[in-house]
Amino acid sequence: MMYRSRLGNDLSDITLDYVSSIDDDSEIILFDILGSQAHVLMLKENKIITKNDAKKILTALESLKKEKFDLSSNAEDIHELIESLVIKKAGMASGGKMHTARSRNDQVALDIRMKIRNDINILCDCILDTIESLVSLAKNHQKTIMPLYTHLQQAQGGLLSHYLLAHADALFRDFERLYDAYIRVNESPLGAGPVGGTSIPIDRHSTAKMLGFTGIVENSIDATSTRDFVAEYVAMIAILMTNLSKIAEDFVLWSTSEFSFIELSDEFTSPSSVMPQKKNPDILELTRGKTAEIIGNLTAILSTIKGLSTGYGRDLQQSNLRLGLHLKPPSVHY
Amino acid sequence: MMYRSRLGNDLSDITLDYVSSIDDDSEIILFDILGSQAHVLMLKENKIITKNDAKKILTALESLKKEKFDLSSNAEDIHELIESLVIKKAGMASGGKMHTARSRNDQVALDIRMKIRNDINILCDCILDTIESLVSLAKNHQKTIMPLYTHLQQAQGGLLSHYLLAHADALFRDFERLYDAYIRVNESPLGAGPVGGTSIPIDRHSTAKMLGFTGIVENSIDATSTRDFVAEYVAMIAILMTNLSKIAEDFVLWSTSEFSFIELSDEFTSPSSVMPQKKNPDILELTRGKTAEIIGNLTAILSTIKGLSTGYGRDLQQSNLRLGLHLKPPSVHY
Amino acid sequence: MMYRSRLGNDLSDITLDYVSSIDDDSEIILFDILGSQAHVLMLKENKIITKNDAKKILTALESLKKEKFDLSSNAEDIHELIESLVIKKAGMASGGKMHTARSRNDQVALDIRMKIRNDINILCDCILDTIESLVSLAKNHQKTIMPLYTHLQQAQGGLLSHYLLAHADALFRDFERLYDAYIRVNESPLGAGPVGGTSIPIDRHSTAKMLGFTGIVENSIDATSTRDFVAEYVAMIAILMTNLSKIAEDFVLWSTSEFSFIELSDEFTSPSSVMPQKKNPDILELTRGKTAEIIGNLTAILSTIKGLSTGYGRDLQQSNLRLGLHLKPPSVHY
Amino acid sequence: MMYRSRLGNDLSDITLDYVSSIDDDSEIILFDILGSQAHVLMLKENKIITKNDAKKILTALESLKKEKFDLSSNAEDIHELIESLVIKKAGMASGGKMHTARSRNDQVALDIRMKIRNDINILCDCILDTIESLVSLAKNHQKTIMPLYTHLQQAQGGLLSHYLLAHADALFRDFERLYDAYIRVNESPLGAGPVGGTSIPIDRHSTAKMLGFTGIVENSIDATSTRDFVAEYVAMIAILMTNLSKIAEDFVLWSTSEFSFIELSDEFTSPSSVMPQKKNPDILELTRGKTAEIIGNLTAILSTIKGLSTGYGRDLQQSNLRLGLHLKPPSVHY
Repeated sequence: MMYRSRLGNDLSDITLDYVSSIDDDSEIILFDILGSQAHVLMLKENKIITKNDAKKILTALESLKKEKFDLSSNAEDIHELIESLVIKKAGMASGGKMHTARSRNDQVALDIRMKIRNDINILCDCILDTIESLVSLAKNHQKTIMPLYTHLQQAQGGLLSHYLLAHADALFRDFERLYDAYIRVNESPLGAGPVGGTSIPIDRHSTAKMLGFTGIVENSIDATSTRDFVAEYVAMIAILMTNLSKIAEDFVLWSTSEFSFIELSDEFTSPSSVMPQKKNPDILELTRGKTAEIIGNLTAILSTIKGLSTGYGRDLQQSNLRLGLHLKPPSVHY
Repeated sequence: MMYRSRLGNDLSDITLDYVSSIDDDSEIILFDILGSQAHVLMLKENKIITKNDAKKILTALESLKKEKFDLSSNAEDIHELIESLVIKKAGMASGGKMHTARSRNDQVALDIRMKIRNDINILCDCILDTIESLVSLAKNHQKTIMPLYTHLQQAQGGLLSHYLLAHADALFRDFERLYDAYIRVNESPLGAGPVGGTSIPIDRHSTAKMLGFTGIVENSIDATSTRDFVAEYVAMIAILMTNLSKIAEDFVLWSTSEFSFIELSDEFTSPSSVMPQKKNPDILELTRGKTAEIIGNLTAILSTIKGLSTGYGRDLQQSNLRLGLHLKPPSVHY
Repeated sequence: MMYRSRLGNDLSDITLDYVSSIDDDSEIILFDILGSQAHVLMLKENKIITKNDAKKILTALESLKKEKFDLSSNAEDIHELIESLVIKKAGMASGGKMHTARSRNDQVALDIRMKIRNDINILCDCILDTIESLVSLAKNHQKTIMPLYTHLQQAQGGLLSHYLLAHADALFRDFERLYDAYIRVNESPLGAGPVGGTSIPIDRHSTAKMLGFTGIVENSIDATSTRDFVAEYVAMIAILMTNLSKIAEDFVLWSTSEFSFIELSDEFTSPSSVMPQKKNPDILELTRGKTAEIIGNLTAILSTIKGLSTGYGRDLQQSNLRLGLHLKPPSVHY
Repeated sequence: MMYRSRLGNDLSDITLDYVSSIDDDSEIILFDILGSQAHVLMLKENKIITKNDAKKILTALESLKKEKFDLSSNAEDIHELIESLVIKKAGMASGGKMHTARSRNDQVALDIRMKIRNDINILCDCILDTIESLVSLAKNHQKTIMPLYTHLQQAQGGLLSHYLLAHADALFRDFERLYDAYIRVNESPLGAGPVGGTSIPIDRHSTAKMLGFTGIVENSIDATSTRDFVAEYVAMIAILMTNLSKIAEDFVLWSTSEFSFIELSDEFTSPSSVMPQKKNPDILELTRGKTAEIIGNLTAILSTIKGLSTGYGRDLQQSNLRLGLHLKPPSVHY
């Protein structure tokens, strides 16, 4: 409610609830703090704020990393909440300078890029693990014969290893796709201001370097308005999920009593409340269900950005939250 | 984990996290309790359980209505959690009988139908309020002229009242659509068992009547497998949202400095962090963003049910959670 | 290119190709002619055009019903093509009056409503036929036992008739949904002009009655801008398709050599080019594929109307063509 | 109907119409011929067919390139139609050998990959042209000031060149995305047979090289089953379209009488049938509409492949046709 106080009227509770993104922002808390740290260091290096102010802000930010956030506060978003906490800790005189030469528009774009970058790293790790499992399983099944299907009709004789490696190859393409997306995500929008940059002599390359970006999104309008990288990332996850869904579909079939190719481990099945001996492939089914969910998320993001004119629109907040997967955020308590 | 214990192996934490719907189930707690109360009354009336067992269970259920639930328990879903709490309160001998002649499959179908029924009532109330506001506003603007647009080009002269009533008419169709959907939702699936009914002589019409349904979903396969009513409900909301989104789009345009037809009230705008005098139509933009979100939800639901063979599949759990709008659940503490 | 000539510059071929809807308009030719006939009769009855002019136009329109249209003409759409043909036949003096007190905006809304009305009738007939087949098949299989499935695991014993009637019940809901949509479609937008009506004293109720509508869409802004009825219709078809897709999915499974519940008739399978003895359930698979197509169409329509401000936008042309199913148009040669 | 004759029963007309892809296959005729030419050359080189048979087939295929195809034939798809024409020209003894060691499953995968490869080339050319136009326009507008917007509210002063280059940058990312997709598309599936390869000693690398692929899709199950490259390609187009849609949205706004930043050229507008002086931005609106269409196509493809188990399913036929854009096929008459 900080910025709001400047307008005079407070939002009613119901309106605040409607506009607030605070519940979902937990996933970007750490990135917001890291981004602010880099920003403040740059401001100090370029003598835009004093060393003393910088020190106070940085100390406050560092201490926030270990805190448990109260997300039920009446802040509209995490940027505002963190800013108010920094001001409380560092005092208005110093803390109030943290946001110098920055807008929520470049700030949120930064946070989302950092979050996606992090998610892609986690996902790629998981994909490589899965590929390794498939390859190792294939090694043990070089002589295990099975029917190969087209139209779900037995078509040719084959080997289980052949089947497993087909999916390893598909997942490797998913890895490549996410890596290609990573390259486009990994450019810093920080310093682009609300849309047209800032007249304060900041150094965008410096913050980009500190935060591990390979470069900056040059054009400030582009940097603040575009979410094509979100759409690309979610599209790549949607395709990854369809590949996983195909394996799930196969295994659901294979574990029927009619096919009986495999028996699922108890740890990955659910019993029935009525027929306790039954083993239901719930986890595989949920993989299919979650695939549909991601397809829906992709639809939502594309439908959102389709409708926007150039320049940040709050519509995007809804897609910020739909980064495809709710991966556990890095270790910040909240 | 109750049912699970019958299988021997426990789910690992990560698997439980993957399959659990407990976070989202909070929206159906009250309906699950009400459904169980009706079920237990019917069991007693038909002498399937004793009066004494029924009394203990009903007392336990009634007390749960006032309790704050610990959703961080390791229950897979709310049905299991409630059952375990009832057993704790009523004892295994009595409480263990609550689930007699019932499956999670008919139980969850019941809860969702009750939840949607409730949501439609809330929504229709809101729609009627909005229509009333539009009509009353139109009454005051019978002589306020404005340009009417096609292709966003001024096309003909018109009246603001004419514009407002156009949207009142559209919203009235949304009301009708939801009402039509309500009729199809308002049939009880309870008693259909896992898929093929039960051999225990229950009275499906009795529970349906107690719970305010106009009748039952006759066929037990249909009752447990279908989610067409969810898809219909979400489709109707998606259309409603596009109608609201159109108004939002108009008002965003009208409040630009170029159009300057209207000025948004401070309570419904957000200031800029950089330019505090600026009034941003965030709430209108979020309406457009939420519209995209619902379109995505609809895609997810249709994509889920498209992929299923007949009979309940856990894929549906993901769509259970996507009932279109996160309306505040009725007053149960959790 | 008629209207265009008034602007001076012709569209380049590539632009015409981009904007033209002529290829898809073939589905609404007959409705456009019928709508024009009613409109001209009304103009005459209300003495807006002379009996002589009306006669010439009506004769021209009637003769067009039997003609083969050259859709490769350089007309932008079917309305323009038909108008130019009427002018050729009836002369500019008379034929030029056909479009009096009418805009392409109310005209195209009329054509789409008539087309959907017709499609719903065809579809409902097909649905009833299918229900009849299911019921009659069920009658013959009252003692044919089969396993009932949940999670694709055998869950309970059941009867084939039980299964078949479950789908008959679902299809009957589809029938009801389409019928409910029909009621909202069946109101005439004709006479609404481009957006704000017309000052010429036409009789909207007269054309509505002649064309079999139950009434008119009162508000002219609403009548020309809304496509909620298209979205509703396509949503209902999407749900219908998921119900058909579920049957298709079951039958694909049942016809595998592992399940072997049914054998598909040769007329409904495709052989393999490599293994001629194999019977592939292509038709069932295409039903699933077409379901995905309709879900995509629904996404497209909702995404289109979400992005529009009030008043006709040409964006809608793309959704006009996406009426869900490419049902054979009524017998007009083209 | 060639393959079909082996099954005995012909498809009824209505069934043929349901399963046939012939209308849409026109886009891949040339690629199918080129693929067959490479296949036949390889068969000859590896002495699988005689030089004489190869010559006859190649002569027949070459002559087909110049022929106008009768797509109203009763062939189920273009592969069958071309094979029957080759047999007619080259005789059954020779022509019948063209399909040796090949299945429709690897053949159609090949055709689609060649088609997408071609489409990406055309699209990338167009994108570069557009970028060039934007840059050149920006050069001429380095001093043209304009307001920059956030939330459609004027936010900062800026330059038109700044705006134009933002979109040039976005389009360049689209170029990169398509290029990345190209790399994954450009691997040959030919030789993978129906799903498990072939026992005939073919040389997959030879056909891949002749057809300009950088390599082969190694795993035959993967080669015939996957359509992830189609989904990726359409996703990239969907994102490209949202970028174009944003420009269209801006220009629609800028050409309103309220904004009046630009005046659209007559060649890119449509007049109103009622108000001839009005210039409607139909072409820009259609860009938005076509964006929604592509988003729908993406939904359809993802929803299709989500539902499939491993191995070709005819469901995919529907997505073959939804390659995102209906680019003019290469010059084969049909």
